[in-house]
Amino acid sequence: MYEKQPYIILVEPQLAENVGMAARAMMNCGLYHLRLVHPREDHLSAKAISASSNAEEILYNAEVFDTTEQAIADLNYVLATTSRHRDQVKPVLNANRAAEILDEKIATGVKGGILFGPERTGLNNQDVCLSDAVINIPLNPRHCSLNLSQAVLLAGYEFHKLQIEAPDEQFVINHSDLADKEKVLQFCTYLENKLDDCGNFKEDEKRDKMVINLRNIFTRNQMTEQEINTLYGAINRLMRHSSH
Amino acid sequence: MYEKQPYIILVEPQLAENVGMAARAMMNCGLYHLRLVHPREDHLSAKAISASSNAEEILYNAEVFDTTEQAIADLNYVLATTSRHRDQVKPVLNANRAAEILDEKIATGVKGGILFGPERTGLNNQDVCLSDAVINIPLNPRHCSLNLSQAVLLAGYEFHKLQIEAPDEQFVINHSDLADKEKVLQFCTYLENKLDDCGNFKEDEKRDKMVINLRNIFTRNQMTEQEINTLYGAINRLMRHSSH
Repeated sequence: MYEKQPYIILVEPQLAENVGMAARAMMNCGLYHLRLVHPREDHLSAKAISASSNAEEILYNAEVFDTTEQAIADLNYVLATTSRHRDQVKPVLNANRAAEILDEKIATGVKGGILFGPERTGLNNQDVCLSDAVINIPLNPRHCSLNLSQAVLLAGYEFHKLQIEAPDEQFVINHSDLADKEKVLQFCTYLENKLDDCGNFKEDEKRDKMVINLRNIFTRNQMTEQEINTLYGAINRLMRHSSH
Repeated sequence: MYEKQPYIILVEPQLAENVGMAARAMMNCGLYHLRLVHPREDHLSAKAISASSNAEEILYNAEVFDTTEQAIADLNYVLATTSRHRDQVKPVLNANRAAEILDEKIATGVKGGILFGPERTGLNNQDVCLSDAVINIPLNPRHCSLNLSQAVLLAGYEFHKLQIEAPDEQFVINHSDLADKEKVLQFCTYLENKLDDCGNFKEDEKRDKMVINLRNIFTRNQMTEQEINTLYGAINRLMRHSSH
């Protein structure tokens, strides 16, 4: 089921809580394969499970290895996350480009993985040199140190965005279809007539300008029929009040 | 200095630690304007400062308001983050599209803000209806509840990506320029000659195929001159060993 996705490999994570939060971030991004290299604390401790916030299945299924070499042995393409500039000859990919490459490779059957270093120090040079490329997450250079789970989240988020087809922009409809222009204009005319009925408006030199403004307000709004009915109700209520 | 960026508005955050972590995420993304609506705990407590991990200037400069209405009073364009589908007629923007719109509007002098709800419940309907549009962060529908600071991070990250000009892909050079093809081919020839000197190779029927393979290995690798020198050294070392 979850074959076409990268392995998330946490190298020597220090705190069980961070492993749990990383699992939560993975599940947020639809990633389920967690590997741990020599974790300092028990990744199945109560703290870890609690921090995972219902993503404990990822912790229970996590594979534990003694060395990074073992954790990547069966993989074909490995990326290393690091925020510091390394003195290594290696392609450096932005997080979104890295996700594209991983996605393309994994789609063709390549087994891919992403390495994340320990909380305090990040990956060491020996681990970085095992990777095909480095992922650089573009952040504020004044403050680019990320919490472990947040690094997992950003890398996973970029990958996840490629897996889904979500429209950039949509309009939520509230159990009622968008009104067509006829309904909108009917409402505008109704409002204008009611204003005329109130007197003073018909003769007002600003009437034309006000009508334009009102029509602009109500036409650019993409109203639903229900909303227009609410406006009719509001107008009628206002008029009842004024007739007292 | 930091005028052209959205205000991050945390509505009734529960835990000071989460406010601190949100400040850290903001600084990761180069965002410095924090507003708090009726926070339950002191956002300048030791816990908050510690969780901010050196982003305490954001906490010290945070503005505190009693109501969401007050917190957005001077803004022109407000987005609400929510993961649940709301029964409200409102445009829904993906996080990247939301960032684009914010970026465009803010560039023209519009004051923009993003609302984030309390940890446990998210924004309530009264707060959502104050916003111009809803931001939906595309996540795993099975598990889309985000920690407060992670929601701030993802929204801020999308905005930050638009502020920087980072190449998608680059090659880090290790104090030594990439070798030109002449140097690479000189090395290949050197290696082939040395192999010939070892005997058996010149007559091997697989020689041609092996030479092609070796040349492919070394030419597609974008080696630096320093790396080629390392290879010369390795070959010479191997030959010294074999001459014993």
